[in-house]
Amino acid sequence: MTPTACLLIIGNEILSGRTQDANIRFIATGLAQAGIALEEVRVIPDKARRIVETVATCRAQFDHVFTTGGIGPTHDDITAGCVAEAIGVPLEIHEESYRKLEEYLGKEKFNKARQRMAWLPRGAIPIANSVSIAPGFTIANVHVMAGVPSIMQSMFTALLPNLEGGAPLRSVAWHADLREGTLAEGLEQIQNDFPLLDLGSYPFERQDGRKGVSLVAKGYDEASVTDAGERIRTLIESLGETPVSGEPAP
Amino acid sequence: MTPTACLLIIGNEILSGRTQDANIRFIATGLAQAGIALEEVRVIPDKARRIVETVATCRAQFDHVFTTGGIGPTHDDITAGCVAEAIGVPLEIHEESYRKLEEYLGKEKFNKARQRMAWLPRGAIPIANSVSIAPGFTIANVHVMAGVPSIMQSMFTALLPNLEGGAPLRSVAWHADLREGTLAEGLEQIQNDFPLLDLGSYPFERQDGRKGVSLVAKGYDEASVTDAGERIRTLIESLGETPVSGEPAP
Repeated sequence: MTPTACLLIIGNEILSGRTQDANIRFIATGLAQAGIALEEVRVIPDKARRIVETVATCRAQFDHVFTTGGIGPTHDDITAGCVAEAIGVPLEIHEESYRKLEEYLGKEKFNKARQRMAWLPRGAIPIANSVSIAPGFTIANVHVMAGVPSIMQSMFTALLPNLEGGAPLRSVAWHADLREGTLAEGLEQIQNDFPLLDLGSYPFERQDGRKGVSLVAKGYDEASVTDAGERIRTLIESLGETPVSGEPAP
Repeated sequence: MTPTACLLIIGNEILSGRTQDANIRFIATGLAQAGIALEEVRVIPDKARRIVETVATCRAQFDHVFTTGGIGPTHDDITAGCVAEAIGVPLEIHEESYRKLEEYLGKEKFNKARQRMAWLPRGAIPIANSVSIAPGFTIANVHVMAGVPSIMQSMFTALLPNLEGGAPLRSVAWHADLREGTLAEGLEQIQNDFPLLDLGSYPFERQDGRKGVSLVAKGYDEASVTDAGERIRTLIESLGETPVSGEPAP
């Protein structure tokens, strides 16, 4: 069975529109390659009650919960404490992380605010951060990472090999100068013949204004994905257009 | 009171990493300006059970639910039916939308697949779509829009003036060549003095590699936001740096 996952983006800055999300796609792509199915993303504000409740709900519902954001040194960095509360363990100084941070920053700079980054839930396993040393952590089925994209990517890359996934998500994409309404009937027939695959159609517009559509077959069984891809290619040809292969769309 | 909102992004293509989200920020920014507080975003797959349950849960929890995705002509476009089910009304042909689509597309092109786009929940009010005519709709406190960014934007822009908001979200941002750990204590003091505002600190990296931080005060009371902004400016100066004003970060 393919393990399931939920991603929690913790941060007011996405909800207010201040910041464009730059983390969902990186994590989604990595999980798909690792054979872990990302089934939900939630963006929530950095309010303690909301974080505690959402972590508790989602970790019961999915095999893995990944979080980004809220583990820095400032007052609004409350993720570690909230995850500890959701799981029911105390927050305490993680000695090894404390020593590493003190060594990296020097005693003078390692003030009380920065020391907060060495407080982890009891039993947490640190996730290495090659950018700025302050660790993420895994506790139970919750993986806590930074929100700054470069740091998140360092942590996610360190974490991913430790997670057991199923077969990677496979996909085939064909693009054509067609509209969705023209191919909908034929595409539905292919979907009916491959009930375990996700068949999607995604309209796009070229820079010159010409409109097209990408037809994508996705799933965990490589042979079925290949077969469905062939059917899509044939469908496009039967509608009098020339299929163009690959990602991204032309 | 500021009304609250939740945004549901319905679509496998974000969860698989195929597509970079291009809708959250546009909607978040528009809601902030309209004085509606976006308190959660969820990205969910186009599976009927998940859509029905999530719409039902979120519309009980928030004043408004906005959805994007799944209202085109293909087999995976199931949002209208799921929203109807979540609210407990039948899906039926919306005569005016049917006529408009038939007129726009011509009788021959207006096939069975495209006719699906004229089926709305009973009692729904269409949301105009100046790009491709097929409407979104509002029913109860749920606002259903397309996922294609240009069409979503056309719908959201048509919809927003009809929604009653509170005072718009105000914000002040100051940027400085500082690290979060250095200013955390001072920033927390300001947060304590303005408990109704959100004070956030957001590290950034310039193209030349120099690191800085943006300090942002946000809230619905303009005078408090202005005062907190002054305190932030003074904090940066007291730490020996030159505050730079405005958005985006330099």
